Parts: sequence; structure tokens; C-alpha cells
Amino acid sequence: MIHQLSLTALAGFPLVEKGDDLHRMITEGLRRAQITLRDGDGIVLAQKIVSKSEGRMRSLQDVHPSPTALELATETGKDPRLVELILQESRSVLRKRENLIIVEHRLGFVCANAGIDHSNVRDGWVLLLPEDPDGTARELREAFRDSHQADIGVMIIDSHGRAWRLGTVGVAIGVAGFPALVDMRGRPDLFNNLLQSTQVGLADEIAAAASALMGQADEGRPAIHVRGLEQPLRNSSLRELIRPEEEDLFR
Amino acid sequence: MIHQLSLTALAGFPLVEKGDDLHRMITEGLRRAQITLRDGDGIVLAQKIVSKSEGRMRSLQDVHPSPTALELATETGKDPRLVELILQESRSVLRKRENLIIVEHRLGFVCANAGIDHSNVRDGWVLLLPEDPDGTARELREAFRDSHQADIGVMIIDSHGRAWRLGTVGVAIGVAGFPALVDMRGRPDLFNNLLQSTQVGLADEIAAAASALMGQADEGRPAIHVRGLEQPLRNSSLRELIRPEEEDLFR
Repeated sequence: MIHQLSLTALAGFPLVEKGDDLHRMITEGLRRAQITLRDGDGIVLAQKIVSKSEGRMRSLQDVHPSPTALELATETGKDPRLVELILQESRSVLRKRENLIIVEHRLGFVCANAGIDHSNVRDGWVLLLPEDPDGTARELREAFRDSHQADIGVMIIDSHGRAWRLGTVGVAIGVAGFPALVDMRGRPDLFNNLLQSTQVGLADEIAAAASALMGQADEGRPAIHVRGLEQPLRNSSLRELIRPEEEDLFR
Repeated sequence: MIHQLSLTALAGFPLVEKGDDLHRMITEGLRRAQITLRDGDGIVLAQKIVSKSEGRMRSLQDVHPSPTALELATETGKDPRLVELILQESRSVLRKRENLIIVEHRLGFVCANAGIDHSNVRDGWVLLLPEDPDGTARELREAFRDSHQADIGVMIIDSHGRAWRLGTVGVAIGVAGFPALVDMRGRPDLFNNLLQSTQVGLADEIAAAASALMGQADEGRPAIHVRGLEQPLRNSSLRELIRPEEEDLFR
């Protein structure tokens, strides 16, 4: 038996605008790629297209920084209006330094600059992360169940920097169907020892794989089809992947 | 044009013993999987088989803990002999708590328990990480260039826990040929803004993808073939991925 994991970019994906129907755009992308969805397949989307479809672009002109934002902007050398948006999107600030603010995002994860993106957005505009990536992933999963009679996983990903290691990697920010965390505790290994404690961040591993294929900003491959995931799908969510603050040694 | 990233497990990979020739075992695995290596392909290996081939198993019976190890063992509730090996394999201890010691490994990365594994190893024995994973990856890359006339990337990976997020993910601990860090700074994006600062940890993204396919300890898929990486190969090493201590906000 061949064990294979294949990721295919849905080529020719159009630029996404506010109000666009991602389910329809993905469906057309699958048709162009001549892929017939099967149970257990997955679709991985870059957060950018989800945010754009939700109209999460903000004009910096319309942002009025609070005194706290002004102070943090002075400390970090960032645009005070951008800092205001970062604070609005965050629960707390973990670290700050020149041009960098590390926050706990309102969605629960820790990331730089609240994931606010100003690449691929026109001058003076920035893009906030999607409103509710778990919810959007779940809706898309249900939509494909209806339209394609296939139970698939859907994931929305972003690229995050990491403690200790250089380079961003793709991570899940919204998950449905893909098992986010796979608990290997207590499964016997090759020599019948019990594995002591291994929980695998499977959704993040798939996110990283998809991110590698999405590649560069100038190529535009925001939607990836995944086949060959062997873990059964189940209801899941980003929350599985968030380390509780009280157990986190690196806050 | 189809953009696809495919990972294939080299099925039926035998258990690895000290002194085994990994180049030969991978070659046989490729033959079984009917894969002909092409320029730009990659091979990803679980650290376990590299360590085993190098005879990096240690019997805890033969380990004599230092006073420092005894103290840290008391603090963490770990076996003092295991703690001794963790300290021998590390440059410094970053954090400690019940049953967990986070270190800077002698290879440069930060990880739990110095990556010392006691799953898949017989009772009373543990497995240290490979001596020089970059060097081994480089040697294998050269061996395949000679034997198969193909320039491939070779990577040795382990599963690491992370700050802030639950679940281990595959990360590179030795790299040759695969570009470890891809610098996107200054490349124009879709709207011709210049991307400000994006370095992608591509080797870690591929490591995560391979790890997802390697799957569970009881299945034994320690070698993965990768095809479809679009970044050109080049000389590379783990060092690219290590964030310098002085730039690390989470030490």
C-alpha cells in the first residue's frame, strides 16, 4: 500500500474582493484542476482571501489612535494607526521592540502585529485577520458536504514567526474537520512501550505543508487541495492548538 | 501548469540497527516504491533512524549523574541518569518544571529534554539525537548525486513542542540542499508593494509535511520522498534556522 500525501494548488485562483463567494471560487478552482472531492480530502485557504472576502480591509486614514496606541507607537516606531488596529485585535501585548509587537490575538494565538498584513493590500490599507476563521472553516465544510456530497476538512492558515527559530511557517488559524491535535498518549510504539506523552499538532503540520506550496506573494496560490490525510475527520477547532496561558513557559 | 507537492512514504522500511547503511536502505525503499529520483526531489528522514544507525543508544545503567544532574532531577522528578544525558547534550537550560527540561541543544536549537527519546527504544535505553545531522544530510546528498546522478535535498527531522501552541510538529534538525530559509524581503507582491520582511522557514514547512505523513510510532515510516519543491536547491544548513540568542525575545 502506498502512503502518499499530495497537495495541489488550485491554479488560476482569481483575486478575491469583498463579498466574493469562496465556496463557488474553490469549486471552480477544483474543476479547473480536474479534482473530484473525496471524503477525507482537505481544502486549505490563505487567511488573506478569507479576510478580503469578509471586507476586513481597513483604511489607516479612518483610524484614530488611542493614547495607549500612541505610546506604543513611539516605543516601537510603528504607525500609531496600525498600532491602534493591532491593539483592537489583541487581548494583550507579550513583547515589544523596534517595529515588532507580539500579542495574544483575540482569536487566542500568539503572533506578531496581530497578524495584520500590509502586503498585497493597496497603499494606506491593511488587512485584518478573518472575523471567525473556525466558523468560516466550518461553514465551508458544510457547504462542500451539501454541494459535493464529500466530507472534507477545511483550514484557514497564516504564516507566523516563532520563538527560537527564524523563518515564518504556515499555521492553522481556523480549522474544521481536520483533527487539529492528535493525541498519541498511551499508544504502544514499535517495542510495545507506551508512548508517554505525544500530542501531534497535525493541523499545523498540514498548514505548513500547504504554506510551502502557496509559496510567494507574487504567485498567488491561496487555495490548496490536500489528499492522503489518514487521520479520520472529526469536529475540531483552533482552540485545541492553543496552549493555556498557565501552562505556557514562554509568555 | 499544475503546482503539486507530493510526499511518499518509502514503505516497508526495515528497523535500523547500528552500522546500517542508510543510503542503501533508502535506495531499496525508492525501488520498492518505484520512484526514480529526479533533480530537485528530496528525502526526509526521521532522526530516530539516523541516530540508530550511528549507535546513539545509551544504556541508563552506564550513566553516572553529576551533582548538577542530581539536583535538576530532584527539581523535575526525572531520572537523574536521563537528566545527566540531557545536560551532556545541551549548552544551557532555559526552563524547567515537573517532568520537563527545555534546553538549548548543542546543535543550536531549543527543544524539550534535549530531544532524547525513549519511545521505540528498549527498556532502560534512550536514544540521543544524531551526532551531526547537517553533516549526515550532506553526505547522503552527495551519495545520491554519485549513485543516482540526481541533485536532491536531504533533511533529518524531529518533532518539537512549541511556545504558545499545543502539539509537536516536525522541524528540521539537519539540512542539505533544501533551502532552509527563503528570504522574501524586497520581492514585489501582487500590487507591487515591496514585502517588508518575510523570511520563510521552508525547510521546517517541508519537515512538518513529512512528519504528518510519517505518522504514528507504531506504523514505522521513517523515510519520505518529496517531489514538487519549486525552490532551487542550494547548499544550506540548520544554522540558517536558528534565531540568534540576542535577537530572541523568548529565551
